[in-house]
Amino acid sequence: MRRRTGRRPGKQDTRAAILAAAREAFAERGYDDTSIRQIATSAGVDPALVHHYFGTKEQLFIATVQPPVDAAKVFSSLFAGDLDTLAERLLTTFMSIWEHPVSGPAFEALLRNALTNRVSARLIREFFTVQIQRRAVERLPTSDPAEARLRATLVASQLFGLAVIRYVLRFQPLASVPRESVIALVGPTIQHYLTGELKEPPATDLAPHH
Amino acid sequence: MRRRTGRRPGKQDTRAAILAAAREAFAERGYDDTSIRQIATSAGVDPALVHHYFGTKEQLFIATVQPPVDAAKVFSSLFAGDLDTLAERLLTTFMSIWEHPVSGPAFEALLRNALTNRVSARLIREFFTVQIQRRAVERLPTSDPAEARLRATLVASQLFGLAVIRYVLRFQPLASVPRESVIALVGPTIQHYLTGELKEPPATDLAPHH
Repeated sequence: MRRRTGRRPGKQDTRAAILAAAREAFAERGYDDTSIRQIATSAGVDPALVHHYFGTKEQLFIATVQPPVDAAKVFSSLFAGDLDTLAERLLTTFMSIWEHPVSGPAFEALLRNALTNRVSARLIREFFTVQIQRRAVERLPTSDPAEARLRATLVASQLFGLAVIRYVLRFQPLASVPRESVIALVGPTIQHYLTGELKEPPATDLAPHH
Repeated sequence: MRRRTGRRPGKQDTRAAILAAAREAFAERGYDDTSIRQIATSAGVDPALVHHYFGTKEQLFIATVQPPVDAAKVFSSLFAGDLDTLAERLLTTFMSIWEHPVSGPAFEALLRNALTNRVSARLIREFFTVQIQRRAVERLPTSDPAEARLRATLVASQLFGLAVIRYVLRFQPLASVPRESVIALVGPTIQHYLTGELKEPPATDLAPHH
């Protein structure tokens, strides 16, 4: 291994080392079971330096995923209005992000990475659990956290599929119908997953999935 | 460039050259505007040899995409039964394919390629148009081909999203609920996209999407 000599590791090297250690730790152990102290030890730096460069553990975690939008901000504005029209607002926001010249390609890159790289997939899963699903548990009108988590994954399945078909693979005509049509067509599905009555499978058919 | 001498191009070289020319032609010009003759010319072989190795143009096209299942066979068995339970059969077949030790990873590889490679994306789009959407136009209970095509893309959006969330990214709990629960939860969405009444957007909102 070639070592650079004659200068101390610079700010960029330290930041990069911390980020790499954080990616590995969050993907390996998950957000809750990872501490700033562990990340600092892996990166060979003082914990104070991690806080100095990245702030809180949550801010460091978000830096490892680099989502093109601020999940906290988007969520609070989405849930500010009427729950009966939440799907419409969610779809409008989602399509605006995907059709935006900067955040669209960033989202596409994130999706691609998640589908082709195991560490990225784990980070996205962890991001979904911590940043999105927990907010859904707080905000959705059900007292059962397991049900709220299931509803959040159902919404994700329709939104991810819409992104893949409309923006990445561009299957026609869904790739070119106006946003208003997408809202009219897909909105009722999302609204049903958010607040509708979910059907239970017939009890006799409840076999474990493998 | 190093040329092998002393032997004529073998069967494998010829097959590979034809396949490469076919992938390029189908992705570039689409299935309908590509002929066996054009592919043969690009590959520098006689059209008869293309037929000899691959059969019909459709068989050659399918060989370029390598779908893990026979679309014609799957479709005819799906549409053999009652239209009101088509979503249930479709989801059961889809999950069986994804949970099968051979076709599951093959589908995942196909999806990954489609999302990361432009030529693969165009081939998948063409495959969807020619092999799946045209069958939907024939079989779905609507006399409007544009509506049948739209319905097929809506179904694709929910199925691709389910595959991404349940099998690739594995968001919980959707990744581990039994198949029967997925059918109870997602089946009504698919059935609605297949045969339900699709909402039109308010006429005043019909602006072109960009």
